[in-house]
Amino acid sequence: MNDGNVVFRIATRADLPSIVRMLTDDELGSQREKYADPLPESYYAAFEQIEHDSNHELIVAELNGDVIGTLHLMFLPSISFLGGLRAQVESVRVDKACQGQGIGSDLMSWAIERAKARGAHVVQLTTHKSREDAHRFYERLGFKGSHLGMKLILE
Amino acid sequence: MNDGNVVFRIATRADLPSIVRMLTDDELGSQREKYADPLPESYYAAFEQIEHDSNHELIVAELNGDVIGTLHLMFLPSISFLGGLRAQVESVRVDKACQGQGIGSDLMSWAIERAKARGAHVVQLTTHKSREDAHRFYERLGFKGSHLGMKLILE
Repeated sequence: MNDGNVVFRIATRADLPSIVRMLTDDELGSQREKYADPLPESYYAAFEQIEHDSNHELIVAELNGDVIGTLHLMFLPSISFLGGLRAQVESVRVDKACQGQGIGSDLMSWAIERAKARGAHVVQLTTHKSREDAHRFYERLGFKGSHLGMKLILE
Repeated sequence: MNDGNVVFRIATRADLPSIVRMLTDDELGSQREKYADPLPESYYAAFEQIEHDSNHELIVAELNGDVIGTLHLMFLPSISFLGGLRAQVESVRVDKACQGQGIGSDLMSWAIERAKARGAHVVQLTTHKSREDAHRFYERLGFKGSHLGMKLILE
């Protein structure tokens, strides 16, 4: 398991190349991301929106100065559930070289604690139906696969 | 089908009781909402957060002065998909007395056009696995059930 030297923190602009590298290094991600130097400007534009919105937290896991994990935690005000705040997690990745050490689990647990501290009543996420390892990973953290996640791709 | 007299617009504070009534009048919603006069203050607190956040639009359908449908459209900045903007829909309801007239379909189509105009690359949503009618409804609008939606309920 994670030996305790991993630090979890809010991402800075300087972390963005490492984050995009991890998003790209993935069967589905490789079809839709572009990890290049310099990074496409659209990544920086999105980062600035996230950085300036208190309902969004782009999070990284760092080990010995290297960014080795990431997730995007968002807080969604909602009328449903008595006006309850939802937390949502997107774009969870751990560097392939560091998988199997419990870092993803610790990263998610850290995010779940932040969601609790903020007063969210639920943490929600979707994973592609093909990611069966991910389903088991989230089930071990207590998530239930109660919903169908549907997407409409726009032109 | 919808006879064309239905108006779609951003909700005001005065619409909130009608919105909560529709959220409550539902098999799952009846277990978690409270439609009362006065409405619990937590609904108004959530409404104010939504109203003041340009990434959130609480939408209603109105017919002859009555609110008969609602959905919550949100825009989620994201690093993934080249920093692409996601649109997400939550809490879709049509008044039971007005179902089967195409109002839900028109309401969703209106929201999808707003998502396109904003530059979103996808509209995403989750529906409970038990809502099979809803799955077919969204499939007719072009949505694909590609994902598993997972939730962790917090204490």
